[in-house]
Amino acid sequence: MISVDKALHIIKSFPKEYTFETVELRNALNLVLFEDIFSPINMPPFRQSAMDGYAFRYSENQKFTIVEESKAGDGHNYVLNEGEAVRIFTGALVPDNADTVIMQEHVEREGEIIQIKKMPFQFANIRKVGEQINIGELALKKGTQLNEAAIGFLAGLGITTISVYKTPKVAILVTGNELQKPGTKLELGRIYESNSIMLEAALKSIGVKDIELIRVKDNYNSIKNRIKKTLSTKDILLISGGISVGDYDFVREALLENEVEELFYKVNQKPGKPLWFGKKANTYVFALPGNPASALTCFYIYARPLLKKISGCKNNYLQKVKVISKTVINNSSGKTLFLKAHLEGNSVEVLQGQSSAMLYTYALSNALICVDSETTEIKIGDEVECIKLVL
Amino acid sequence: MISVDKALHIIKSFPKEYTFETVELRNALNLVLFEDIFSPINMPPFRQSAMDGYAFRYSENQKFTIVEESKAGDGHNYVLNEGEAVRIFTGALVPDNADTVIMQEHVEREGEIIQIKKMPFQFANIRKVGEQINIGELALKKGTQLNEAAIGFLAGLGITTISVYKTPKVAILVTGNELQKPGTKLELGRIYESNSIMLEAALKSIGVKDIELIRVKDNYNSIKNRIKKTLSTKDILLISGGISVGDYDFVREALLENEVEELFYKVNQKPGKPLWFGKKANTYVFALPGNPASALTCFYIYARPLLKKISGCKNNYLQKVKVISKTVINNSSGKTLFLKAHLEGNSVEVLQGQSSAMLYTYALSNALICVDSETTEIKIGDEVECIKLVL
Repeated sequence: MISVDKALHIIKSFPKEYTFETVELRNALNLVLFEDIFSPINMPPFRQSAMDGYAFRYSENQKFTIVEESKAGDGHNYVLNEGEAVRIFTGALVPDNADTVIMQEHVEREGEIIQIKKMPFQFANIRKVGEQINIGELALKKGTQLNEAAIGFLAGLGITTISVYKTPKVAILVTGNELQKPGTKLELGRIYESNSIMLEAALKSIGVKDIELIRVKDNYNSIKNRIKKTLSTKDILLISGGISVGDYDFVREALLENEVEELFYKVNQKPGKPLWFGKKANTYVFALPGNPASALTCFYIYARPLLKKISGCKNNYLQKVKVISKTVINNSSGKTLFLKAHLEGNSVEVLQGQSSAMLYTYALSNALICVDSETTEIKIGDEVECIKLVL
Repeated sequence: MISVDKALHIIKSFPKEYTFETVELRNALNLVLFEDIFSPINMPPFRQSAMDGYAFRYSENQKFTIVEESKAGDGHNYVLNEGEAVRIFTGALVPDNADTVIMQEHVEREGEIIQIKKMPFQFANIRKVGEQINIGELALKKGTQLNEAAIGFLAGLGITTISVYKTPKVAILVTGNELQKPGTKLELGRIYESNSIMLEAALKSIGVKDIELIRVKDNYNSIKNRIKKTLSTKDILLISGGISVGDYDFVREALLENEVEELFYKVNQKPGKPLWFGKKANTYVFALPGNPASALTCFYIYARPLLKKISGCKNNYLQKVKVISKTVINNSSGKTLFLKAHLEGNSVEVLQGQSSAMLYTYALSNALICVDSETTEIKIGDEVECIKLVL
């Protein structure tokens, strides 16, 4: 059995290498760039009017004759003579020998003649070529997580595909003879299987899309064979159940038999003590306890950060905050506790129902209080460390 | 032209009514319950062992004979006689006439005989029927946003489908003759169209999935007809471009012609002044400015909260914080400013490149500084209001 700190330290040393995939830009929301992106064009690509108005060559003139119109999208580069102006609209091409745009509110127009009411400064209201970015300049750095603005920005440069950190392919393998599929009538001695759908949702919420759900009976050979199959096709394997020391807990043996290297087994924590973590080639395996609340806690604390790190994210851990406890907490277990809690402003309250089988409490909680193994008592008003759960 | 506050006040008064849809639980992550959910079963449904160990009837006895085995999933309810015990595993059915489970570490076993080393209290290590929830009890309230724990919890009750607030169906209608699809060679006077992919990503990041992208030329009849089509099939229509006062801005006229009620047009803000908001039956229309950064700002401030509210979410607005400005800000415009900024800890800095055409700055920013229309100067060290942008 190892400490929570030691277990986290081991997890943090992985992965040793990263892989990438090429994706369409429109499917890249929240993905992380695996390459520096250099602009293939000048942006704007031509001198653009920033206003609806009139373009002309700056001079002493206060009166111009409108000779042409340049609307957004027009590709014609008019040649203006002295005293001539072009009617122009926002985003439209400014003729090469015009240098100033006046907004339409600042002229008086009669037929094809405009009279300037308020002369702008020379070069006004023209967006220069490459004002936003020049061709060949660094647009976005490797490691940038793409939000909607970044996606829009790259699309505006004409980019359609990019290289990103590969999002892990995950299998969720659920064991347990007692587990019955929701939607059927419950038989005596059995319960509905909920860990697969819960873990699937937890994976989706961090952007994992390629998820395979596998249900296996508590049978050594079935478990061993299904593990073997997934090891070669997935990046992460989450196993639920079968990792305690009961006579029907075959998972550890099946993993070792499949030559998955054991990196740790059993963590000095509550819930989640029987957590197992291992690795074979570039596939990582978390064998999570079967109890739903334990499984979810182990997912948040250990699996989620590794999944996010493989995906190239920089902030992989759920946010920790120090707040004031509204509850007395006794810890005679000698273990690190993760307690489902409700955080509000600067204080936090332990919720009723901490049993590792109870998801109800989790559904209502927005934080986990962490009590380290050496702390035996927290009084009301003491500072406690809290992990904020995302939603 | 109305103030930002007035515009927000109008948006906040909608929607007047809500609709629901029935979805599979496994597709319900982050959706909001439209119904109270009552438990269809007791959870646990039978008395469960909380340990791997032995079940027996509490007595003065220190020695028991193992007569049966109850493993998780077994449905047989053994009848125990005085002095008999059942070998039992975590999650397994506790026989009706046993009342105590001892963990395996607290007995000495020789063949089929166990000798108690440390007697637990009576009723120990047994999870009672309905300990988590009883049949007919309220499981989750209408209005609960479903995280992974809530989904797991409902699955554990055997639930497979639920009623949720309907996620809006959205059309993004992009106008502009200057716009060219990324992936083709750029012609003179034209730019790549990026607002549709940007708005699509912004919608996806708040859970909207049903999104139709429509591109239309700056032609009054085309715009009018496409608006007509989408009004009857979508809940929200986001229009990009064509809403200024240029001669080729047909959007407002096309909306009015389609009997979309104008709720406001033009907001005293920078960027995003020409924003238009209207409603026809239960469809809401935002006509956003065509400049990418203006469009995204209007989306964040006005469209996103309405979309989230229709989806049943309670926290619809991006989080506002008051922090210290690291930049001098002058506001002689008389308008409310939304400035792209970088927030770090307790201070915020205005980024270079605030032009409404520039998405680059947005891609690097994590906050918008709000400067109200009456504030003319913010000094370094002054407190400013900031909107945190999600990622």
